[in-house]
Amino acid sequence: MEVSKEEFSKRIKNLQAKLEQENLDAYLVGNGENFYYLTGLAYRPFERPFFLIVPRSDSPTLMVPKLEEAHARDIAGVGEVNAYWEFPAREGENWFNVLQDLVKDYKSLGVESSLPLNYLRYLPEVVAKDLVEDLRLVKSKKEIEKIAFASEVADRAVEVLVGNSAEGVIALMAIANVSTEVYLKVLGKIPTANLMVTGSTAAVWPAPISAMPHRAPGPFDVIKEGVPNVALATVQSDGYSGECERTFFATSVEEKSKKIFDDVMEARERALETVREGALCSEVDLAAKNFLIEKGYKEYLLHRTGHGIGIGTHEAPWIAEGYDKPLRENMIISIEPGVYIQGYGGFRHSDTVLVKKDGYELLTKYPRELGKLIIPKK
Amino acid sequence: MEVSKEEFSKRIKNLQAKLEQENLDAYLVGNGENFYYLTGLAYRPFERPFFLIVPRSDSPTLMVPKLEEAHARDIAGVGEVNAYWEFPAREGENWFNVLQDLVKDYKSLGVESSLPLNYLRYLPEVVAKDLVEDLRLVKSKKEIEKIAFASEVADRAVEVLVGNSAEGVIALMAIANVSTEVYLKVLGKIPTANLMVTGSTAAVWPAPISAMPHRAPGPFDVIKEGVPNVALATVQSDGYSGECERTFFATSVEEKSKKIFDDVMEARERALETVREGALCSEVDLAAKNFLIEKGYKEYLLHRTGHGIGIGTHEAPWIAEGYDKPLRENMIISIEPGVYIQGYGGFRHSDTVLVKKDGYELLTKYPRELGKLIIPKK
Repeated sequence: MEVSKEEFSKRIKNLQAKLEQENLDAYLVGNGENFYYLTGLAYRPFERPFFLIVPRSDSPTLMVPKLEEAHARDIAGVGEVNAYWEFPAREGENWFNVLQDLVKDYKSLGVESSLPLNYLRYLPEVVAKDLVEDLRLVKSKKEIEKIAFASEVADRAVEVLVGNSAEGVIALMAIANVSTEVYLKVLGKIPTANLMVTGSTAAVWPAPISAMPHRAPGPFDVIKEGVPNVALATVQSDGYSGECERTFFATSVEEKSKKIFDDVMEARERALETVREGALCSEVDLAAKNFLIEKGYKEYLLHRTGHGIGIGTHEAPWIAEGYDKPLRENMIISIEPGVYIQGYGGFRHSDTVLVKKDGYELLTKYPRELGKLIIPKK
Repeated sequence: MEVSKEEFSKRIKNLQAKLEQENLDAYLVGNGENFYYLTGLAYRPFERPFFLIVPRSDSPTLMVPKLEEAHARDIAGVGEVNAYWEFPAREGENWFNVLQDLVKDYKSLGVESSLPLNYLRYLPEVVAKDLVEDLRLVKSKKEIEKIAFASEVADRAVEVLVGNSAEGVIALMAIANVSTEVYLKVLGKIPTANLMVTGSTAAVWPAPISAMPHRAPGPFDVIKEGVPNVALATVQSDGYSGECERTFFATSVEEKSKKIFDDVMEARERALETVREGALCSEVDLAAKNFLIEKGYKEYLLHRTGHGIGIGTHEAPWIAEGYDKPLRENMIISIEPGVYIQGYGGFRHSDTVLVKKDGYELLTKYPRELGKLIIPKK
């Protein structure tokens, strides 16, 4: 299930074609996901800069700290490796000395817009343009296979979370074994998985904290009867991501919750119905959003309908008003409209969705019907 | 064990005093660790910018995505909360529209040097100066208490890793229960711990991969007799970090390994002997480095002697040649010289160390003597 050397070479060639178009002599890649996309090398940089330098026609060069030189030589699918001593280092041996030497012959140098601004002082004049994000938008066959598998693991993680849950259970117990189950499932299929880019963020948000989807639940928050809890699993499996989220209930469902659940599921349907090659991302967002506003939820909306999924757990395209680019076949996105009532709870399913020429395919398959999301008392 | 409201207010006041000195009207904080230091709010930004705006005399303002508005209101110890709709959003409702409005009255605006360069287009002229990193260098009584506890948890994590290990055991089995043990120990002491900033990176690097300290070990790499394995635990406990690393052996120790182990431990002693208020960070680094070079290890060195520890697992001060600032009482650093022989293995202990007026205190206490680091066959 590995991305082949040929595919890495092709990615570099595609970037070089963009350099040609943009009339740039070379491009500097410092973002970890872009670096991984182009080389297969995953790392935790901390304060030590890593760069991939891609010239318009020559082969690429990696700049890494000495500490990672052997690692980079072993793993990176492309390029020659240059190491600097350490961050910081004595005069003349710093990362920027090595970098300056590596880029000194380029008259027009492209950089990512996320480059820290203090790096500018070490570089000649640069052009900020996000070229690699564009290349990553449409997924290859191998990438789709890897994301589909990560989505299957995310399904399994939600199964574990919901299976651990019931009225009276605390959030901490719901997550007890989920990380282990994720590793077992990934390694069962990909024994060579790179653990640097394998893992999960998985938890249960009991009501009412489910109305704050980006606040960590308290470990001792208790799952209560009738109100909406959200189980979330974002899995990274050997470098590629998948996401599954479900709203579930303990013992029974309050009438109020049932109504909102149904409306959010209908909004989700409306969004999915628009998904196909050529649909604008903003159109997909508005299909869900406008339905929810019509139903009176305007003040209970907190976010757009979805985001791209690939190496990043969040990446372009953005399924959001204001982002008017069209979907293309083999993009992968989340569809996850939500409604959040502070003090009561939140409602959201998220699925990982492959865009097809005439529609879509759901890569996450965990049950989504209310009847299957009511957990009996234990 | 919580940082008090008073301490957060004091941190803001200290930053404001720096703004006075630097003659800046306001300062923009976008780095997550700095933001957490000043507000107590931890978040995963993904693509959605967060900012804390600290004016020279007025009270601070937070800018967060709508999705995190309730979370920020609930948790942040300081400031008024302003939300923008989403990333991206329709014209006029984007994060930069809200930010521009919040900073429009400041004539001189300070920013962090890590600010992504594309943000510059949305701001008036700015001055890049890292002011918050300076404030974080010397730890308060409460911070020392929290880091000492995180170090105790790191000790426990290493105890679990080494306890799981033996000749013939695979790397995956060594880490099996370590994450759970970390959560149990943290929550036993801090039941209200914020799970967003609680967790661990903990693993065993069997020889020979122990010579690549930043490459993830293969899950099925086997621990072998006689050669150096490294157990590493970096713990984050309710927002503060601690680090413990040990070189250990299965069944017995080869003569070659014994010699190198002793030399690295002597280098560690040399570095520790220099630690006290007033010693230059570069001096501490050179005490270890020069000893190892004398002993013939020059080509086997991969990194500096240490780094600061606090909210960050790596932060200033850097215990490195080229960083000539003096240590001060109540700084906390790692001391971790290492020797790495590609194809054979790596040798490194890391301890979390509190700087005292006349010396130091080790906050990690897991045994470091060779005799206690040889694991019998099971």
